[in-house]
Amino acid sequence: MSVFTLTDPNIKKLVAISRELKDISSAIALLAWDQETYMSPKGALARAHQLETLSGIYHDKATAKSLGKLLDEVKGISEFDIALIREMQRDYTLATKLPRSLVQELSKESSLGLEAWKHAREQNNFSLFAPSLERMVKLKREVARCYGYVDSPYDALLDEFEQDLTKKKVEAVLYPLRDELKVLIPKLVTQTKQYDKGVLHQKFDGQKLWDFSMHVLEKIGFDLERGRQDKSAHPFTMGLTQSDVRLTTRILEDNPISTILSTVHEGGHGMYEQGVSPELDFTTLGYITSLVAHESQSRFWENMIGKSIEFWQYFFPQLQATFPEELEGETVESIWRELNVIKPSLIRVDADEVTYHMHIIVRFEIESALIEGRLAVHDIPTEWNKKIKEYLGVDVPSDSLGCLQDIHWGQGLIGYFPTYSLGSLFSAQIYESVLKDHPDLPHAIAKGEFEKPRKWLNEKIHTHGRLYTSDELAIRVTGKPLSSAAYLRYIEDKFAR
Amino acid sequence: MSVFTLTDPNIKKLVAISRELKDISSAIALLAWDQETYMSPKGALARAHQLETLSGIYHDKATAKSLGKLLDEVKGISEFDIALIREMQRDYTLATKLPRSLVQELSKESSLGLEAWKHAREQNNFSLFAPSLERMVKLKREVARCYGYVDSPYDALLDEFEQDLTKKKVEAVLYPLRDELKVLIPKLVTQTKQYDKGVLHQKFDGQKLWDFSMHVLEKIGFDLERGRQDKSAHPFTMGLTQSDVRLTTRILEDNPISTILSTVHEGGHGMYEQGVSPELDFTTLGYITSLVAHESQSRFWENMIGKSIEFWQYFFPQLQATFPEELEGETVESIWRELNVIKPSLIRVDADEVTYHMHIIVRFEIESALIEGRLAVHDIPTEWNKKIKEYLGVDVPSDSLGCLQDIHWGQGLIGYFPTYSLGSLFSAQIYESVLKDHPDLPHAIAKGEFEKPRKWLNEKIHTHGRLYTSDELAIRVTGKPLSSAAYLRYIEDKFAR
Repeated sequence: MSVFTLTDPNIKKLVAISRELKDISSAIALLAWDQETYMSPKGALARAHQLETLSGIYHDKATAKSLGKLLDEVKGISEFDIALIREMQRDYTLATKLPRSLVQELSKESSLGLEAWKHAREQNNFSLFAPSLERMVKLKREVARCYGYVDSPYDALLDEFEQDLTKKKVEAVLYPLRDELKVLIPKLVTQTKQYDKGVLHQKFDGQKLWDFSMHVLEKIGFDLERGRQDKSAHPFTMGLTQSDVRLTTRILEDNPISTILSTVHEGGHGMYEQGVSPELDFTTLGYITSLVAHESQSRFWENMIGKSIEFWQYFFPQLQATFPEELEGETVESIWRELNVIKPSLIRVDADEVTYHMHIIVRFEIESALIEGRLAVHDIPTEWNKKIKEYLGVDVPSDSLGCLQDIHWGQGLIGYFPTYSLGSLFSAQIYESVLKDHPDLPHAIAKGEFEKPRKWLNEKIHTHGRLYTSDELAIRVTGKPLSSAAYLRYIEDKFAR
Repeated sequence: MSVFTLTDPNIKKLVAISRELKDISSAIALLAWDQETYMSPKGALARAHQLETLSGIYHDKATAKSLGKLLDEVKGISEFDIALIREMQRDYTLATKLPRSLVQELSKESSLGLEAWKHAREQNNFSLFAPSLERMVKLKREVARCYGYVDSPYDALLDEFEQDLTKKKVEAVLYPLRDELKVLIPKLVTQTKQYDKGVLHQKFDGQKLWDFSMHVLEKIGFDLERGRQDKSAHPFTMGLTQSDVRLTTRILEDNPISTILSTVHEGGHGMYEQGVSPELDFTTLGYITSLVAHESQSRFWENMIGKSIEFWQYFFPQLQATFPEELEGETVESIWRELNVIKPSLIRVDADEVTYHMHIIVRFEIESALIEGRLAVHDIPTEWNKKIKEYLGVDVPSDSLGCLQDIHWGQGLIGYFPTYSLGSLFSAQIYESVLKDHPDLPHAIAKGEFEKPRKWLNEKIHTHGRLYTSDELAIRVTGKPLSSAAYLRYIEDKFAR
């Protein structure tokens, strides 16, 4: 028995189309995953062409007149039918606004942009990346023009990653947060500086770190029969289907905690993908598009769980047994305090959970200025370094440690970064709700029992896929709209300790 | 400047269509490669569905009425135009004979068949594979009916893998060869038995074998910037494009020579794929469809080069340095003699180059009987064991070592095995031609210089892609049609030593 009303011929047709679209997008996802994991070094040009062709085919199917007609005529019966129609209508509306040639150019440029970025980062030379990024910014401005917008072309790009998100909404959340953090950060820096002993920045064996990450991943509940982990330049999660979810990580031999928690972070994304109801797999509703919801899951596991003292009460003895020499004389308490040191730094993905938001605000301001035509691509390094100094008080010594650190812009992911902060805030809000239902959660974590949070998240969030919009989801799951309140309470409680 | 006459709008259109088809088939190839290398264990059902969808899309494009019309109207100017039209016409004619639903069923069944085969082989239980194979045989009989044939439905399947090949032609080559081998094998068995000392069947370290294989692969000239090697249950080569060629191998810790020569074999396929002229890449002419030609390249490297004493004059000292304990007291001569022992055995891919053909004849007779309806799937194990006894004098102790050893049938590769023997014969014929141009070839090999044969093969064969049919190719390259004469001379010379 399907959750969809397959006895209705129109619903049946819609589900079949949805499934075909999902199959094509899974193939595209595999091509993209492979490009970042196993593709031959010189395979990039051919890959760009393959992606261009497949994205053109996807576009043809996603904008077919017959689909538009079907969407006009079909009437949903079950809750699932109605959600399917709603989401397919949104996808159809967005897709039909873009000409095929633009979609293909974007796809090709995104694939080539990845290679240009890799190359520029290796060479520590932004100018090797700039021409590609200039083309991408131009294409994304064209996308915004096609989608249409009221206040800013940047709004149109935000909406693609998170429905109804606007620059004003982002500012309404992030700027007050920024002002709070401006006061909080110096306080926490002073408070935690004493614990920064450099224990966690010795050299650790890469293979052992990989094995430990795999162990943690399995322990928190990522299903390795329905997914895997590989290595890539920048960690990411790609859910081909709920039965084949690909995580990647990178091994930092001088940063074991970042290495392990990066796996925990992607594991949080991965468990979301794996947790969608099998009934929805292969359909539009099985494909989670809210990046805020997605990031709430990765951050929940990385921060609320992975940076808690209870998590390390369970894992530290094992880590110490793996690295007896490096961790000699350390305790759960000392390690937990060191890994929670608040310290402005250069690299976003290694940042602590407080200064992290400043990294996002820098990116948000730069990318919105690029799209609004207030900033030229070649001025990015100067602007970046200025803002990092302003928000974090840190000097940027090179582009690789500055504006070349992230993979996103070259791939066309502009309007994406704000969802990282919003997702982090959402994760704290969710955490309050989980704690309300399971006051003994920390106790369970300390014993290595991760079923409780996993089951809670699965039932309240994962299983529904794209059934609810993320605004609806916030209300359903936490009883209130997204704000930074829970996050600030979480930070205050944690550092009061 | 393209080798195609792009100033002609029809040729330009044809090249664009050819390129789109190649992109889709590259994506399909990646999905298939991934299924055998990195796919999550439970991802098979979704993968089958993705392949079904993509093969349907490919079929739609490959059979589009507009393509048929274009092929009717287009006139080629350059030699390349004419070959492109000829090959696209052949593909179009074949594709339009099959209904879309059959193509999709085949694709799905082939993907599921792979999993059923893996499972059955692990469990050593043919009956777990039989239902899938029964469906596949039924589908392939239907394919033969759609293609049409004069004498046998099996002819229609042979033709798909090797243009114009028929059962009669296979028999005309393989049966006289079989009769020669019936006399030759017992003689060579007696002659070489003394060298079978078991040195090469001790336990060797798997990681060291992998590293050594990679070293050999690079040394013979496979370009690791435009290709890679991974592990799979059954070694294969998948050329996505000429800049991204995927080899796989399997590490047999009790058989270092088979492990290394399996890499050399796939490397031969891989260098063919990499060697196609860049002008032809992304088009139908860049996609080598003659399996006889393909196998001639892998066998050339595996047998003529890899089993020559000169090859081991170069590599044995390195192998001995890698495994000093296992190979203590051995010499180039002793190892070369042992690896060339002729001995009837159970596993085709580990068979020596003489008894090998008997393995193929067994498969040829069984698969043609299946397609002609003279043999039922559930009778395969009995028939297999009977024939292996008849042709090789060996008792088959289990299905895993018998009729479950090969991946092919479950994937729908029926009518494929004969090309292995024909390709082996062709490789010997090619070797005679190379020797004529380079009488000092053995001397170069002994010094680890592999450029001469690689360059010769590249210029005479690889670079042309699908420009010539394989019958034309045999004449152009060796001056005569394919026969077993050169092979028999090669074996006689070798074992006279």
